[in-house]
Amino acid sequence: MKNSFRNKVAIIGAGMIKFGELFEKSFETMIEEAYLNALQSVDKGLAPQEIQAAWLGTLYPPQGNSGVLLAHATGLFEIPITRVENACATGSDAFRNACFAIAAGIYDIALIVGVEKMRDDGAGHIQRSAVKQLWGGRGVTMPAFFGLHATAYMRKYDVTRDEIALVSVKNHRNGALYPYAHYRFECSVEDVLKAPYISYPLGLYDCCPVTDGAAAVIVCRADVAHKYTEKPVYVLGSGLATETFFRCGDLTNFPATQYAARQAYEMAGIQPDQIDVAEIHDCFSITELISYEDLGFAKPGEGAQLLKEGLVDLEREKPINPSGGLLAKGHPIGATGVAQLVELFEQLRGQAGPVQVKNNPAIALQHNIGIGRTATGSVSCVHILGLG
Amino acid sequence: MKNSFRNKVAIIGAGMIKFGELFEKSFETMIEEAYLNALQSVDKGLAPQEIQAAWLGTLYPPQGNSGVLLAHATGLFEIPITRVENACATGSDAFRNACFAIAAGIYDIALIVGVEKMRDDGAGHIQRSAVKQLWGGRGVTMPAFFGLHATAYMRKYDVTRDEIALVSVKNHRNGALYPYAHYRFECSVEDVLKAPYISYPLGLYDCCPVTDGAAAVIVCRADVAHKYTEKPVYVLGSGLATETFFRCGDLTNFPATQYAARQAYEMAGIQPDQIDVAEIHDCFSITELISYEDLGFAKPGEGAQLLKEGLVDLEREKPINPSGGLLAKGHPIGATGVAQLVELFEQLRGQAGPVQVKNNPAIALQHNIGIGRTATGSVSCVHILGLG
Repeated sequence: MKNSFRNKVAIIGAGMIKFGELFEKSFETMIEEAYLNALQSVDKGLAPQEIQAAWLGTLYPPQGNSGVLLAHATGLFEIPITRVENACATGSDAFRNACFAIAAGIYDIALIVGVEKMRDDGAGHIQRSAVKQLWGGRGVTMPAFFGLHATAYMRKYDVTRDEIALVSVKNHRNGALYPYAHYRFECSVEDVLKAPYISYPLGLYDCCPVTDGAAAVIVCRADVAHKYTEKPVYVLGSGLATETFFRCGDLTNFPATQYAARQAYEMAGIQPDQIDVAEIHDCFSITELISYEDLGFAKPGEGAQLLKEGLVDLEREKPINPSGGLLAKGHPIGATGVAQLVELFEQLRGQAGPVQVKNNPAIALQHNIGIGRTATGSVSCVHILGLG
Repeated sequence: MKNSFRNKVAIIGAGMIKFGELFEKSFETMIEEAYLNALQSVDKGLAPQEIQAAWLGTLYPPQGNSGVLLAHATGLFEIPITRVENACATGSDAFRNACFAIAAGIYDIALIVGVEKMRDDGAGHIQRSAVKQLWGGRGVTMPAFFGLHATAYMRKYDVTRDEIALVSVKNHRNGALYPYAHYRFECSVEDVLKAPYISYPLGLYDCCPVTDGAAAVIVCRADVAHKYTEKPVYVLGSGLATETFFRCGDLTNFPATQYAARQAYEMAGIQPDQIDVAEIHDCFSITELISYEDLGFAKPGEGAQLLKEGLVDLEREKPINPSGGLLAKGHPIGATGVAQLVELFEQLRGQAGPVQVKNNPAIALQHNIGIGRTATGSVSCVHILGLG
């Protein structure tokens, strides 16, 4: 790679809506509210007409050409609007494509909105589609597939249910503090272990809920960022990768994450131990644990140590999922990656309120994995953000 | 806009499969064949492992995370693959996003594949979705909507059915020569007028068929293009715009095309009269006629003159749709824009065989419009290609 986003792309605004069961809000209303929150977050103000292009991340929109719904919701007509879809990495990949256009110098300012209505019919559609597609249509649901990851991981590394449960306990503890989270309650290891099984060994609190939501980020050319804020957040690195188990065969890691992380670290010139705070794709508790290892935060089989030592807790050295992660905040697919970026933008600027981490973070990492034919984790997207 | 694709992005390879009713080919097979044809078209050869990223354009894929299907079809694992959807501009917008990444210098070489299976279930799904969405679900089908455009245009400009039919006659004449076209037969004005009505005033030959297909393009950084071919085709301009009739109200033009064309002309530093050959989105005969005017090839109401004078014929001064256009070649949605680029790549290089235009073209234009809530032509994408 000859080039990077460093010194080229900055985030100047970010906002989201409270995630939850939002039957009362339309797809367009959710977009509109997230957009207005992002617009209002720009410190020195931004006029809508300064936005030159937009990207929409959504997996299951109410129609094709869903870009026009973004135009209706925001009033941003006449400009380019592109919809990106990439399974659970949909929102982060939409962000990524906007960064390309800004880094190319084609636009000064672009908007990214991620949105999903899961409760109306999205989740059912996605689940049916997954059952149809995974492992050749053999009826493996998502909890079942990630349950296989968990049993394989527990067996290979002699890790217990209690240790995996620490992910859920930590994330629900954070989510209880995060104003935008779908679920805002704490739970104990005992609660996690006593909850009904969804697919062994994963119980109810090991699984993210079915959630509606929207989030928006505004990016601009780094050299004009100070016109809009004294504290821009720069995009240092980005990676995206696709993989299949036909080539891997080991359920104890997600190679797509490893490839995407390598790309992002290389572009940023950053090592895993330099990451101060991260939002990681914890669609299931086991996913966060495995992702510690794929992202280079722990050696294979040693991810649980970070939890047992508490290093990844909100107030500690390497806080992970201060927002409560997907487990507590929810996972409205197209919105998920963008919401992670919203929260990390606030963390780096010291504006994360009740979930503000205590280690004065300068570098943050955002991570998604997504599911496709023949593989959980068949796609992964990683971004690295920094203050300078 | 501070920057452009000029001197930054070049097409070095392009290929497609014969469009038609391809029940016997899977989604992945269609991708694979188009990809291999594009790969083999690179004059000095290109190794698959030189491709650093890929974009997939498809409106109605068999699954979410359809990017992994591209990986399976091509063997291009580990690299970034992004799916873009933008209604009938899906393929051209996928191309556009790849160009951003190349222009930003992030990748040297990228693949774009557009694909659609319309016959299996895509067309039915799209049609149901359109009926549900257009004009608030009042059951307006696509031919009905474009029929309204035709009657409004005929009434405002005193244009006749015979004159509109000249689009179909020209495009079927070209399509009969084009090896990749779905329909390869000529038809007369009388044939067009005598054909069964689909939605007045549009008859069978005024409507594009329901077609399966795939097409692929390989782009690279302009400064390394000569490593792969002595005759790269450069991307000079690109535009994309979204609009709605709630703001326009006149059915005799497609404002999104006007905005997208303005963006593309500005980026390229080109005027409409400098375009030597164009592939225009003739989903219906009337659409091509109106697009002449929106693209600046004719004044409002005067588009039919180009047809009556024959200026847009294959062997004349400003050939339009030498491939037969969507009317003869077919309109497999995700593939359509990419296939237009494939054909223009060959035209500019003098390799278009039986449909080679005779005016030694140096500059070409590609155009799509797409349909969304409240508007036909609610999205438009325009690209301008050139030899230097």
